[in-house]
Amino acid sequence: MQQTLSLEQLKHQVWEANMELPRHKLVTFTWGNVSGIDRELELVVIKPSGVPYEELQAEQMVVVDMDGNVVDGKLKPSSDTATHLVLYKAFANIGGIVHTHSPWATSWAQAGKGIPALGTTHADYFYGEVPCTRLMTEAEIKGAYELETGNVIVEAFHNLNPDQMPGVLVNCHAPFTWGKDAHAAVHNAVVLEEVAKIASRTLNLKADVQAMDQHLLDRHFLRKHGANAYYGQG
Amino acid sequence: MQQTLSLEQLKHQVWEANMELPRHKLVTFTWGNVSGIDRELELVVIKPSGVPYEELQAEQMVVVDMDGNVVDGKLKPSSDTATHLVLYKAFANIGGIVHTHSPWATSWAQAGKGIPALGTTHADYFYGEVPCTRLMTEAEIKGAYELETGNVIVEAFHNLNPDQMPGVLVNCHAPFTWGKDAHAAVHNAVVLEEVAKIASRTLNLKADVQAMDQHLLDRHFLRKHGANAYYGQG
Amino acid sequence: MQQTLSLEQLKHQVWEANMELPRHKLVTFTWGNVSGIDRELELVVIKPSGVPYEELQAEQMVVVDMDGNVVDGKLKPSSDTATHLVLYKAFANIGGIVHTHSPWATSWAQAGKGIPALGTTHADYFYGEVPCTRLMTEAEIKGAYELETGNVIVEAFHNLNPDQMPGVLVNCHAPFTWGKDAHAAVHNAVVLEEVAKIASRTLNLKADVQAMDQHLLDRHFLRKHGANAYYGQG
Amino acid sequence: MQQTLSLEQLKHQVWEANMELPRHKLVTFTWGNVSGIDRELELVVIKPSGVPYEELQAEQMVVVDMDGNVVDGKLKPSSDTATHLVLYKAFANIGGIVHTHSPWATSWAQAGKGIPALGTTHADYFYGEVPCTRLMTEAEIKGAYELETGNVIVEAFHNLNPDQMPGVLVNCHAPFTWGKDAHAAVHNAVVLEEVAKIASRTLNLKADVQAMDQHLLDRHFLRKHGANAYYGQG
Repeated sequence: MQQTLSLEQLKHQVWEANMELPRHKLVTFTWGNVSGIDRELELVVIKPSGVPYEELQAEQMVVVDMDGNVVDGKLKPSSDTATHLVLYKAFANIGGIVHTHSPWATSWAQAGKGIPALGTTHADYFYGEVPCTRLMTEAEIKGAYELETGNVIVEAFHNLNPDQMPGVLVNCHAPFTWGKDAHAAVHNAVVLEEVAKIASRTLNLKADVQAMDQHLLDRHFLRKHGANAYYGQG
Repeated sequence: MQQTLSLEQLKHQVWEANMELPRHKLVTFTWGNVSGIDRELELVVIKPSGVPYEELQAEQMVVVDMDGNVVDGKLKPSSDTATHLVLYKAFANIGGIVHTHSPWATSWAQAGKGIPALGTTHADYFYGEVPCTRLMTEAEIKGAYELETGNVIVEAFHNLNPDQMPGVLVNCHAPFTWGKDAHAAVHNAVVLEEVAKIASRTLNLKADVQAMDQHLLDRHFLRKHGANAYYGQG
Repeated sequence: MQQTLSLEQLKHQVWEANMELPRHKLVTFTWGNVSGIDRELELVVIKPSGVPYEELQAEQMVVVDMDGNVVDGKLKPSSDTATHLVLYKAFANIGGIVHTHSPWATSWAQAGKGIPALGTTHADYFYGEVPCTRLMTEAEIKGAYELETGNVIVEAFHNLNPDQMPGVLVNCHAPFTWGKDAHAAVHNAVVLEEVAKIASRTLNLKADVQAMDQHLLDRHFLRKHGANAYYGQG
Repeated sequence: MQQTLSLEQLKHQVWEANMELPRHKLVTFTWGNVSGIDRELELVVIKPSGVPYEELQAEQMVVVDMDGNVVDGKLKPSSDTATHLVLYKAFANIGGIVHTHSPWATSWAQAGKGIPALGTTHADYFYGEVPCTRLMTEAEIKGAYELETGNVIVEAFHNLNPDQMPGVLVNCHAPFTWGKDAHAAVHNAVVLEEVAKIASRTLNLKADVQAMDQHLLDRHFLRKHGANAYYGQG
């Protein structure tokens, strides 16, 4: 995931990726944010807090260091910045992160349930059940809440590979997704919402539906990802 | 909530806020209305009754006094004017009110159920369960119906703070929302519809879902509202 | 309901009303048709069969007499023409009819269930439960099917006033609506779809929901309809 | 189904039909493909693999022979090409095939359930229940997976006429549809998605709904299809 972009280019890319959220109908008002990281400089570019998408400019993107200190930009960074930073530190290969309250994925988060792998649409992107974090404790909520949100995500991945599972549901909250860069993270946010929708409707048709066959999951995930992928023009 | 707008500016603002309803897909045909109040002059500006949004002009806004007498405007005010007036009298800090039949919120109203706080999307705006009014009596329905509609809303708030709960469901009818001005009231109408949608889908996934943790509700409501809010650029 | 339109004007109006169907997202492909009647001339103007809406021209509207004979137009009339004619004969005051397969109303028709009056949105237009016809017999289906479709609709109205109940669900099929003219019939088709959607979602929230209070139904229907209506600019 | 198009015309038609998929909101990103066949030349034209629709050009269409060898085009054909070829070989009259992950049809596929014929919308296009294939074996999944996908579809049609049932659900996967040419196949993909949606909502209203009356199914299918069809201008 080496960044070959300049910091200015990264700011532009993160801005573009933010602007994709309303276009894909993933956000209402300001409910969402995208960030991207420069792994060499150890700097993260993120949306400013509470700025409406219709007014958002590339030059408003905020640059923070890995401790969350603003090193460039006139505005306050997203209130969720601390969550992003925890994920960048824990998941070494990811280059971009998206947080939205997209409604179908959010309904799974509110139900406190992971999204089971029920078909090939899911298997093409998420290698198994999309996990849902545990409920946070009173201390975590009252403490460094956004940082602790990142911690419960990382905890949910102690047996999962974030490169094969590019998203999570935060319990009673909403989804986060990631990818090799900010655009890929948005792509996965769109897919997660679609997968969440189809899974909900599947459960409506068959309340006791079981997770899909492991061989089929393998086949679809691996035809798109990894050394033997044969989907696309690769 | 002091009004610093002239009455002409308020009429324009209320007209703009009305025009936001179809843009946010909150209304079908003429099913909705927005009003705004000038607390100093004790005058309310409201949409005229039954005028299609595609034809609605700023100069058609109707100005009424606190008893509902038209003091400016050639058209009849919204048939729901009496409800708005009751709310302005009872809720001292609100500056704008919206009524729609937005479909997700209306389905909760028709079910006669308040919308439980199930996640942070809800908690960012509504500090607890969005209440549903009690059924109206035959006398109330046959009497000053629109005024009595206001009264049952106020009754539902005897233990609630309207500044922390900017909306309500009228039983077997539809939602009302409010805010510091007409635009804020529309903003809350959009949020209520989104929250109603996500809550319905959450129940579909988990029929026995419980209201969210009180600490998480506090954290999210208070990071956006009140003295210690830290969301946005404010 | 006297027609003050010339036949050419009526053709134009019926064409316009047909073109509203895709605009309101009530039809997929050619699945729908609108007609209008000239009660003095005893002529009905209706959409031609199977012509895509994007190609539909006003001059393609077909004029038929009350026996279904084409008296003007080069194309075959809608295959549902016989149903329309039965309704015009039985319901003396209606001036326009719409048939669509709009998806929410169609799901109620496929379930074989009338749509109960659950709230004021419904009560503003439909004075009670929107009826669903009985299943048709083998003889009716194999016989003059489209005419018999009209007959089962009329049968469903033996205790209902079509002027207060401007729509019906045909069992295992889809809705018909009507009104004083073709535009009003389309208006009611839009409302029926919205009411069907909200009712479905209400049932999802409360499986045992009961029909709304009769006084509230009266109040809302009669504030919009009849001698004492006070909604709109009257 | 004789092809009177040149190969260049067929490529253009298949490209046009592919471009209809996003227009009808049947695909997210690159999730879908359309092909067409020249029965005389025994050549199939199909979308290249993984190319975004917004960039897709007619000249990028790939031409393969009946064994899947590329005979024209610079890009790799769709990864689902082998499935298309099996269907063209088994179903002698079809001229075009569509594969999508359209969400309503996909939810039926993930539930492993065929879509029962519940009303006339369905009966106008699909002559009975739209079948769902059996689960594939480990050997089929690990072997020539895309070819075996075609084989389980053909197996599901051992008692069905593909000319009267222009679509199928692949278990845990998604739908395929077909028709006399690529445009007709897309038309049927749109209808299948609409039928899947209405059927899901019907089940929500009536969990124990039964398949529609056979006479009504016959009447509707045969008024649109076959020697005695009387729908449209034909």
